[in-house]
Amino acid sequence: MTRRPEFPIVKLRLDYGAQLVLGPGKADLLEAIGQLGSISAAGRQMKMSYRRAWSLVEEMNAAFREPLVDSSRGGAGGGGASLTEAGQAVLSRFRALETLLRQDGRALIDEIGAMLDDMPDEK
Amino acid sequence: MTRRPEFPIVKLRLDYGAQLVLGPGKADLLEAIGQLGSISAAGRQMKMSYRRAWSLVEEMNAAFREPLVDSSRGGAGGGGASLTEAGQAVLSRFRALETLLRQDGRALIDEIGAMLDDMPDEK
Repeated sequence: MTRRPEFPIVKLRLDYGAQLVLGPGKADLLEAIGQLGSISAAGRQMKMSYRRAWSLVEEMNAAFREPLVDSSRGGAGGGGASLTEAGQAVLSRFRALETLLRQDGRALIDEIGAMLDDMPDEK
Repeated sequence: MTRRPEFPIVKLRLDYGAQLVLGPGKADLLEAIGQLGSISAAGRQMKMSYRRAWSLVEEMNAAFREPLVDSSRGGAGGGGASLTEAGQAVLSRFRALETLLRQDGRALIDEIGAMLDDMPDEK
């Protein structure tokens, strides 16, 4: 038995060189922080170490004129964090670019997918 | 002195799971093979080992119903290779998706770029 390949996961990266690479990982982290109100909880949900999640947040906060994440509510034991207005603006624009690709690029992506070989079912 | 960040390099990946991830590296390799008529020359231009270039070509040829690269002209000493019609079709559609992003996504990308901090000149 074979199946047609699914619509792919469409991954977008904006590469600003040494200053920042903004891709799906950072976008998902921002989204999770906005939802969970905590950098460490967001990191856990993404199966990312606490240190890694903080390091990505610091990288983003340093790259933009306004920080994207406000962790000022966090005390010594960690704690709350939220997306700033700038964080929400960057995240929503990144998501809009992904949507643009998936929607307006749909025909092109389908044409590539139609040329893929059938795949045997996964074991 | 500071400078405004440049328009980013926009990187697109189509992730079909275990079957294939089609991204900028494979697209550039296809393009170089089409231009140079040789897998090894294309690999050299991309600073990629011969083994690596061949492995990417084999991965793409296996993933699609029709091979993307025809290396049948290559003899024992390596030699010629060309993009098949399928190879040209996949490459042109991938490039069209990148163009869609850069053109129709221009306003969104510019809005993200305008929020980036000024960068000190690189040393």
